[in-house]
Amino acid sequence: MSDFHVVILAGGSGTRFWPLSRETCPKQMLKIVGEDTLIRQTIKRIKGFVPAENIWIVTTEDKAQDIKFHIESLGSLAKGIKFIKEPVGRNTAPAIGLSALYLNHLSSKSVMIAMPSDHAISDTEKFLYDLKLAVEGVKDGHLITFGIKPTRPETGYGYIKVENASKMAPNGFFKVDRFFEKPDPQTARTFISDGSYFWNSGIFVWKTSTILSEIKRSLPSLYHTLKKIEPLLFVPNEKSKSKEKEKPNTLTDLYSSLESISIDYGIMEKSHNVLMIPATFQWSDLGSWAALDEIIEKDDFGNILKGNTIDIGSQSLTVFAGERLVATIGLRDMVVVDTPDATLVTSKQKVQEVRKIVEELKKNGREEHVLHKTVERPWGSYTVLEKGNGYKIKRVVLKPGARLSLQLHTRRSEHWVVVSGIAKVTKENETYLVHNNESTYIPINTRHRLENPGKVTLQIIEVQNGEYVEEDDIERFDDDYGRT
Amino acid sequence: MSDFHVVILAGGSGTRFWPLSRETCPKQMLKIVGEDTLIRQTIKRIKGFVPAENIWIVTTEDKAQDIKFHIESLGSLAKGIKFIKEPVGRNTAPAIGLSALYLNHLSSKSVMIAMPSDHAISDTEKFLYDLKLAVEGVKDGHLITFGIKPTRPETGYGYIKVENASKMAPNGFFKVDRFFEKPDPQTARTFISDGSYFWNSGIFVWKTSTILSEIKRSLPSLYHTLKKIEPLLFVPNEKSKSKEKEKPNTLTDLYSSLESISIDYGIMEKSHNVLMIPATFQWSDLGSWAALDEIIEKDDFGNILKGNTIDIGSQSLTVFAGERLVATIGLRDMVVVDTPDATLVTSKQKVQEVRKIVEELKKNGREEHVLHKTVERPWGSYTVLEKGNGYKIKRVVLKPGARLSLQLHTRRSEHWVVVSGIAKVTKENETYLVHNNESTYIPINTRHRLENPGKVTLQIIEVQNGEYVEEDDIERFDDDYGRT
Repeated sequence: MSDFHVVILAGGSGTRFWPLSRETCPKQMLKIVGEDTLIRQTIKRIKGFVPAENIWIVTTEDKAQDIKFHIESLGSLAKGIKFIKEPVGRNTAPAIGLSALYLNHLSSKSVMIAMPSDHAISDTEKFLYDLKLAVEGVKDGHLITFGIKPTRPETGYGYIKVENASKMAPNGFFKVDRFFEKPDPQTARTFISDGSYFWNSGIFVWKTSTILSEIKRSLPSLYHTLKKIEPLLFVPNEKSKSKEKEKPNTLTDLYSSLESISIDYGIMEKSHNVLMIPATFQWSDLGSWAALDEIIEKDDFGNILKGNTIDIGSQSLTVFAGERLVATIGLRDMVVVDTPDATLVTSKQKVQEVRKIVEELKKNGREEHVLHKTVERPWGSYTVLEKGNGYKIKRVVLKPGARLSLQLHTRRSEHWVVVSGIAKVTKENETYLVHNNESTYIPINTRHRLENPGKVTLQIIEVQNGEYVEEDDIERFDDDYGRT
Repeated sequence: MSDFHVVILAGGSGTRFWPLSRETCPKQMLKIVGEDTLIRQTIKRIKGFVPAENIWIVTTEDKAQDIKFHIESLGSLAKGIKFIKEPVGRNTAPAIGLSALYLNHLSSKSVMIAMPSDHAISDTEKFLYDLKLAVEGVKDGHLITFGIKPTRPETGYGYIKVENASKMAPNGFFKVDRFFEKPDPQTARTFISDGSYFWNSGIFVWKTSTILSEIKRSLPSLYHTLKKIEPLLFVPNEKSKSKEKEKPNTLTDLYSSLESISIDYGIMEKSHNVLMIPATFQWSDLGSWAALDEIIEKDDFGNILKGNTIDIGSQSLTVFAGERLVATIGLRDMVVVDTPDATLVTSKQKVQEVRKIVEELKKNGREEHVLHKTVERPWGSYTVLEKGNGYKIKRVVLKPGARLSLQLHTRRSEHWVVVSGIAKVTKENETYLVHNNESTYIPINTRHRLENPGKVTLQIIEVQNGEYVEEDDIERFDDDYGRT
């Protein structure tokens, strides 16, 4: 299986799941369906199908580190996974083209299995069965996709029309007639009654040589730029290393110049070489808060109530609450999403307009679309409890054995109170332990490090004092996570 | 004016404005309309009409101290005000009967002006003009009330029907034919078209001798109990002081035995002796979140949006937000109320069911109906920022010159970090100053006191450590506010 590679597309910003999704915590990093986050579920789903070394995550440079930290909890599985970094987001056609360059460089026989990182798929066994069928069929140079048998006239999905829907080829494939963009309700109803239409799952299998040929044919400008990018990615020998420093800018310039275009629109719709496997697994692209209705079990009144909620007499209501109480009375077809710093209340008909809220926040220079109050880190997490004039209060949680970077702040001092566990504190040349119910003080301009030397979680309350208490007042001297 | 007394009825628990109202912060203590809280507006409205010494607040024993602290910001005006404490809440008829005992004891010529503490009245001049008219008319032994000219077929108010609506008596009074409970919509429409119906404002003027006679006639059992209570309230001479300690229980028992009944239902509806003044002021009883529509100015789409809000395309929406962001999309006829620990989302048609949410919280032993995260105190306020296993974090704000009680905790220690101002700390026999960006530690079982000796507000962050971090772990030795 060494020529088979799984490419996980993880560039999505997921504004449609705001306020649960943020710039630094896009949809693929959310636990909205199932027991784990969508991207970790995606990785676990294909575990064993290819070796971890053959799993690639394509994402933008600014998201790569957050995702790397995020998947670290998968242990050895995560260690093998490699990242393909897009300098900027340019939709799926360029992302797949870039990935094809990498895999083709390894071997001209490489086969790419491309899949989104943020879709819901139940029944892993059926999924892997269908995938196996697909990889057996790529040898003849086809583009292979998976179609979902539609259960309702959905207007939020693209559709695939197959030829001769009544008879499937003996190898399990249909020949694809054509692709359709999201239809209007009337058209969607026609599609459903026709019987030869399937939902486009966005999961594809092809040889890298095939997809590069298709890109050359249908998106020649993308192909041309990829050919310019290729020598920048793979330096032929040691002598050229000196030039490496110039690369990022050139690569960034080239990639930035690309047109944002999806693989469906740019390639699939124009190709005459597409086969479709009717999927046996359940699937949802989780396109909006309203899409959860398809995939999460509802109560007798059609309600989905998660977290700390009390409801009286609502119907078809979705509530995603956390620890704060959300009380609802007599609502119909609504979505309520509560997070520590922002609450969304919307009618289900208007969920797509969540994007507009995020745009409004960006425009006004606000922060509720960027970071959550709680930020996950490889060493644990921190939660901003309050920010006031000249101070900020954080709860910092360190996993056993973890430590923060050796760092310094030029504009704030910090008071630390240990509320559980034991802290090992380094302050310039001094190192000492701080126990539960003890405190310590880190003056301004002092090199310091916080470490959890114990076997239980360490929790400290940090009170920062200073006229400037933002995250960017930090100088790192040594870091276990390569952030110096 | 020494015989004229204003009795402010402040026993309401105001569950209908949850989550903004709480057991310890009922509706009268909320700033929902106007620039100040409803009870402080009520007091300021009648300032000058009677001397402060002739203003009485009737409320239950458990609310009296909170209200006392709450009105302290009114300064000298608040100092004169006296409290009449009901041992338990028994609705307005017993509360007014009890007040009549007090005022009648002062002088048999006393006149009582009874008014709710939690209604909205705009135009104080007109209000005082109408009140003046009323107090001039009580001498002939009438019960005088104020009727509001109805502007819509409201089903949430009681109605007053007057005799000969076409001709008002020369002194400005109508004779009242009868009172009506809240009508159904059909009846309400008949009332409006008839022209002789007014809304019952719940503001009354009468001589104490008159109301006591009316109670004797219509609620003989209440009268009988009041007669038993009377000698317990007013000890005739010093010799009886020894018996005083037995009083509270007896008084509590007697008062608790009373039937809960409103003055409207118990007296006004049965009396043939009622005159009504058509009010010239604007009024709302603020009976629910939906009632705000009558009194608060709306935008072009019928929305009331307060606090940190972003809305896209809603109509007839009321949002009460605080510092947290509330984003709304495409809502119709809804109310959203956000507080630091609880959010309410309800259709306007169902706002009355907020009571059921509060009942549910009580039943489940929860806390979201009892206290706010921020608790106002005469010395300032405190905000619970987080409570975790074995710790609690508070921000404590002290007014210049204020100090907390000299106190001790048997189950927790406290770390204090000063984030603005200067703290004077007493720890057993030691007293010292703690400046901004300095901290101090109060061990378990240590007498301590926090004081603001400066001219600016003092803010400290308090991290409590201990296996039990509740408010009732406190022993007070000396307190400026009489709480030892």
